[in-house]
Amino acid sequence: MLEQLKKEVYRANMMLVEKGLVINTWGNVSGIDREKGLVVIKPSGVEYSDLSPIDLPVLDLDGKVIEGNYKPSSDTATHLALYRAFPEIGGITHTHSLYATSFAQAGRGIKAYGTTHADYFPGIIPCSRKMTPGEIESDYELNTGNVIIETIAPIGADKIHACLVYSHGPFSWGKDAVASVDAAVVLEVVAQMAFNTEILQTAVNANGGIPMQQDLLMKHFNRKHGPNATYGQN
Amino acid sequence: MLEQLKKEVYRANMMLVEKGLVINTWGNVSGIDREKGLVVIKPSGVEYSDLSPIDLPVLDLDGKVIEGNYKPSSDTATHLALYRAFPEIGGITHTHSLYATSFAQAGRGIKAYGTTHADYFPGIIPCSRKMTPGEIESDYELNTGNVIIETIAPIGADKIHACLVYSHGPFSWGKDAVASVDAAVVLEVVAQMAFNTEILQTAVNANGGIPMQQDLLMKHFNRKHGPNATYGQN
Amino acid sequence: MLEQLKKEVYRANMMLVEKGLVINTWGNVSGIDREKGLVVIKPSGVEYSDLSPIDLPVLDLDGKVIEGNYKPSSDTATHLALYRAFPEIGGITHTHSLYATSFAQAGRGIKAYGTTHADYFPGIIPCSRKMTPGEIESDYELNTGNVIIETIAPIGADKIHACLVYSHGPFSWGKDAVASVDAAVVLEVVAQMAFNTEILQTAVNANGGIPMQQDLLMKHFNRKHGPNATYGQN
Amino acid sequence: MLEQLKKEVYRANMMLVEKGLVINTWGNVSGIDREKGLVVIKPSGVEYSDLSPIDLPVLDLDGKVIEGNYKPSSDTATHLALYRAFPEIGGITHTHSLYATSFAQAGRGIKAYGTTHADYFPGIIPCSRKMTPGEIESDYELNTGNVIIETIAPIGADKIHACLVYSHGPFSWGKDAVASVDAAVVLEVVAQMAFNTEILQTAVNANGGIPMQQDLLMKHFNRKHGPNATYGQN
Repeated sequence: MLEQLKKEVYRANMMLVEKGLVINTWGNVSGIDREKGLVVIKPSGVEYSDLSPIDLPVLDLDGKVIEGNYKPSSDTATHLALYRAFPEIGGITHTHSLYATSFAQAGRGIKAYGTTHADYFPGIIPCSRKMTPGEIESDYELNTGNVIIETIAPIGADKIHACLVYSHGPFSWGKDAVASVDAAVVLEVVAQMAFNTEILQTAVNANGGIPMQQDLLMKHFNRKHGPNATYGQN
Repeated sequence: MLEQLKKEVYRANMMLVEKGLVINTWGNVSGIDREKGLVVIKPSGVEYSDLSPIDLPVLDLDGKVIEGNYKPSSDTATHLALYRAFPEIGGITHTHSLYATSFAQAGRGIKAYGTTHADYFPGIIPCSRKMTPGEIESDYELNTGNVIIETIAPIGADKIHACLVYSHGPFSWGKDAVASVDAAVVLEVVAQMAFNTEILQTAVNANGGIPMQQDLLMKHFNRKHGPNATYGQN
Repeated sequence: MLEQLKKEVYRANMMLVEKGLVINTWGNVSGIDREKGLVVIKPSGVEYSDLSPIDLPVLDLDGKVIEGNYKPSSDTATHLALYRAFPEIGGITHTHSLYATSFAQAGRGIKAYGTTHADYFPGIIPCSRKMTPGEIESDYELNTGNVIIETIAPIGADKIHACLVYSHGPFSWGKDAVASVDAAVVLEVVAQMAFNTEILQTAVNANGGIPMQQDLLMKHFNRKHGPNATYGQN
Repeated sequence: MLEQLKKEVYRANMMLVEKGLVINTWGNVSGIDREKGLVVIKPSGVEYSDLSPIDLPVLDLDGKVIEGNYKPSSDTATHLALYRAFPEIGGITHTHSLYATSFAQAGRGIKAYGTTHADYFPGIIPCSRKMTPGEIESDYELNTGNVIIETIAPIGADKIHACLVYSHGPFSWGKDAVASVDAAVVLEVVAQMAFNTEILQTAVNANGGIPMQQDLLMKHFNRKHGPNATYGQN
């Protein structure tokens, strides 16, 4: 059943490897058939090179496995919570991509520093609050979904397509599985730009560092571009 | 029409992907035929893998589409403003390359810290001023061109081949489309070197950090290179 | 003898190159046959491209070469010390991977900043103490093993699968040679995330830097996603 | 003439591209035949993809071109000065590799922070002093050689195989052309490790940053490795 959705979710999972967002068995993508109320998701702990569309388990929104021989991703309860809370979501991606995860580990959202960010996200990409010992102890994956929902609901899942989970990493979503991977790819680039921007805002002082000698600057420029340039062949 | 220019502008656009300056549909390169007063530019939002020289729209300097079925790049008005202001420009590139964009997001130009910079740019690569709410509200892309012109005109577009746009990213130019991409490639390397230099000028203190133990240093060096070296085969 | 173990240790050594953890002849992996008490290890200073399973020397736990024409790795005495101290170890990897080595050079362990770390290591990945001039002077490689043992024994080699050696780099281990490389791969990713996290915790202030203008943010978002979006083809 | 040396110097130049040390026409490698007193070097401003062993000019130690249709590298006078000053040198490499150049731009040498450095360099990799306006104005490339000689002579070119030139970049050397590239490769890795180490020594405080919650740490570790682990397939 759901052959087309399985192919699409498989394809989206393989994109995680191609785009450099995951290593080993890390990360997972799911997609939902809203009419049937059924979710297709990556199985837990399976190598990407061993994955096939046929292996993807099918679950209902309560987490009951409807089809498939493999256990679904250990993050399944988080995905299902998001699907239940946000009917506009058609696909969800979770990765531990380097820079987005680094912001999650620093416990803060990614502020909008430039138009690359603004082209996709209309404000800060928020970071959820610390979970309580009780939330961690039982129903941890469900509660991970709940802190995302708590963080995103006031903004709207249709406005912001990603959330960082505190000390953990990013979840992103979109109209379908591939769109949720696209959001994860852009999120990672935006995170690296924000990382660099914060370093530059900290470095030296607002005017930057100590420049080179003016003599040396002009010597090199003129060696290549001046009227008596000596660089290159005639 | 303009088959040769279309091939060249197509080739220059594909270089953006090959050189790692763009992902997705980001970035755009244009070229101009100065005799005819016509510009060829990347269409808006088309995947690089789907692009062909035939798809590139042709415009006059007022932005009227002369040929082509695709809408031109959303940054077209910026390109045209630069072509009108600087007759010496034959090609223009816009990217969101990582380090140049990070400087733009930090709101400051890239100072000359070394001869790699000096080999191409005879001074700071400037960053335009913040745009006003009015400039953003209407004719935004035209006004983006105008703040670049305002920033570059006092220096000369023939002297400095690139400008950072505040909170946005780099524009670069040259005698033709390929030359403008070459400038974008060097700009990105120079930006990363400047980023590192500012960090090193900030780190620890002017003399660097705490070095390793002298005993361990000589032990390892002599293990490989001393008179009684034990490393490797005999 | 030990053909199967040689193939496995060869395979694990080649993974170091494939995973980007080593250049030149750097790094080494070993594996042990606990029943026979024999260790197979990379030969010293041999290029990975010249390596073959047949070349791998076989040693007993006292370091006596039992088979092979090549001198074993210069770090052999460190490996053997760990095998003698920790009977649960089946394979050991040593690299100078970039970020893990940077922490070793800074002389401190890698704290747990997020769940990527927690998925593999139940606490700080410790860094051994500085070695004394006497420990460096004689039996240096054996003493390198001893400071690792001193650091890891209180935690348990079954609990933490890696240790940084002060001013040197990481050693990691596992149930077999390949598992020890897997630990080295994850260690390197976790180290880079920790590096980034410490920078973000230092940068600017706890709330991050100065964001972009709200006008520009909404302009760009709406240009692509608003009701009157102009980006892309119709 | 010197066919064998030309092939070797060609091979060494191509390694610069393969190892990621240069882009465009940047960088150059030379080699010397000490018996004949003749030097083979990369021509100026030629693309690596257009290079062939036949194109490499041959010069005597005074800079007179003995054979070849191409102008030699614009840095030739620097190479020749080093060959004249240090008879033990058989090959020289110059690059603008990213991290080594960043240290040169920060105007300081690369201290020994760990055994990766110590395996190749028995102490700090020094940075030459600022050149005077007079030294820059005339005989600039010769004077670049002279400040390297002034910096290295007290240590010995046989002891330290590399020098950073202030605000410029690294020169390295060895017994032949390929050995000088090997030194450039290791220099770049050592520079990046030193860069990271200085950041870590600056970041937060000597003990690192704020770690994650203990509850979350153990939850994730036990989810994968505890007695009731739920991750992966059965």
